[in-house]
Amino acid sequence: MIVEHSRAAADTLRRLHRGPRALVLVNVWDVASALVVERAGFPAIATSSSAVASSLGYPDGEVISAGEMLDAVGRIAARLQVPLTADMEAGYGGSPEAVAQLAVRLIQMGAVGLNLEDGTDPEGHLIDPEDAVARIQAVRESGASLGVPLVINARTDAFLVLTDDPRHALAEAISRLARYRDAGADCLFPIGVRDAATIRTLVGELAFPINVLASPGAPSIGEMEELGVARVSLGGGPHRAALATLERIAEEVRYAGSYDSLVAALTHADLDSLVSGSWR
Amino acid sequence: MIVEHSRAAADTLRRLHRGPRALVLVNVWDVASALVVERAGFPAIATSSSAVASSLGYPDGEVISAGEMLDAVGRIAARLQVPLTADMEAGYGGSPEAVAQLAVRLIQMGAVGLNLEDGTDPEGHLIDPEDAVARIQAVRESGASLGVPLVINARTDAFLVLTDDPRHALAEAISRLARYRDAGADCLFPIGVRDAATIRTLVGELAFPINVLASPGAPSIGEMEELGVARVSLGGGPHRAALATLERIAEEVRYAGSYDSLVAALTHADLDSLVSGSWR
Repeated sequence: MIVEHSRAAADTLRRLHRGPRALVLVNVWDVASALVVERAGFPAIATSSSAVASSLGYPDGEVISAGEMLDAVGRIAARLQVPLTADMEAGYGGSPEAVAQLAVRLIQMGAVGLNLEDGTDPEGHLIDPEDAVARIQAVRESGASLGVPLVINARTDAFLVLTDDPRHALAEAISRLARYRDAGADCLFPIGVRDAATIRTLVGELAFPINVLASPGAPSIGEMEELGVARVSLGGGPHRAALATLERIAEEVRYAGSYDSLVAALTHADLDSLVSGSWR
Repeated sequence: MIVEHSRAAADTLRRLHRGPRALVLVNVWDVASALVVERAGFPAIATSSSAVASSLGYPDGEVISAGEMLDAVGRIAARLQVPLTADMEAGYGGSPEAVAQLAVRLIQMGAVGLNLEDGTDPEGHLIDPEDAVARIQAVRESGASLGVPLVINARTDAFLVLTDDPRHALAEAISRLARYRDAGADCLFPIGVRDAATIRTLVGELAFPINVLASPGAPSIGEMEELGVARVSLGGGPHRAALATLERIAEEVRYAGSYDSLVAALTHADLDSLVSGSWR
């Protein structure tokens, strides 16, 4: 029953990558944030691993344990009506066997998609793309064995690492993402790219759904769609903007002794009813 | 060693209630929010139980388990340099024995103060003040037995419940808070009051530190200090304002296709360095 529900949700999430509109994801970090975004009318919800980690007290980059990240994902998935995809960094453990096990636990937690990045080794070099391919295949096989075809958003960190040579970064990203595509990924995520020309090249070369991380100054959603982008996500930005609001409140009360920044807040009754309504 | 550190932190927190300035608390819900408020220069941090609960997916009002609330408090306390006081609602279980045990676990988690409310029974009536007194005494004795004199902020819900008759509510609040004061509370919290006249009456009648929950339109911090208020807290307001920012981001990207609301966000490097710096 849970499997059937998750299979349908995975199919829905996968279909949202195949247009006609881009799938827009306002990444969340806990249950309340997820419910606010779901209520705003989005057809799917995504976590940001850096946002989840910092909310629980961990720096970015797999300092949090897989178990704590999965628990956070499970809390969120249990309260949503729409599909949830979870940012699982590079898989918290590296080996294909460990990542296969992670995918099983992710399904048990109620998520139906994940971000999986190639990432870097301790020296800061991109890991061997063969290792990333093995992880993607492991997730694909785990999902198939449980009957829940997890939607895999395969990320390359090429543009974050190879910053000295943009042409090399582009070539490396295309080469890696093509392999991830052929290994069974559903969407390809060249994090660090947001200029229209590079996006156009990636979409053209890969002929496959592409995820772009958007931030102020990036092409609008309409422009992204014209460029052929399938998925636009906001990463840790919404969480860091929410924290900036908190910082502004703290500074106002500290220096001006007033509370005007609280005027725009959701009401207690509104938030309580939103959370209560998620109990099914 | 932990006890000595906690005893000193409890003494610091208690002293902050004894002027000359009001203790201002911008209530938080997780580690990242706590670190943002601590960095803004506040000498103590307080949780909001409704904010912690909703962030984890629970409506307000002791739907969350004591264990999950304590875990959240422990995550926050472990990362702060300044004293933490935790909103523990009516004590998650009622009996003085259960509340005594809760106080022990709270100290183990690293908190050095708590909010404890009288609250209502299932019919919505205020509980017997004797029961609230017994809980306060139980916390006081638990703290003494462990050598950590927990700072008790004793709240009455009189103004929330007796809304039909403001004079009755005021008399009931004064009667209850006087008993909580005499039972060993360190601060008295008449939630639901924010007008200057009532605050002045409460301060005059009780001659003891008073906590006022502030929101837009309430007296400023300077005015609170002139009224003799010892402690001003913001409750779930900061959390709900942060969520309103998220809602605005979600609506902007959904309806305008742009990301301008993200301009004010903390940077990734800033948040990551804040969280990393909390690892001691």
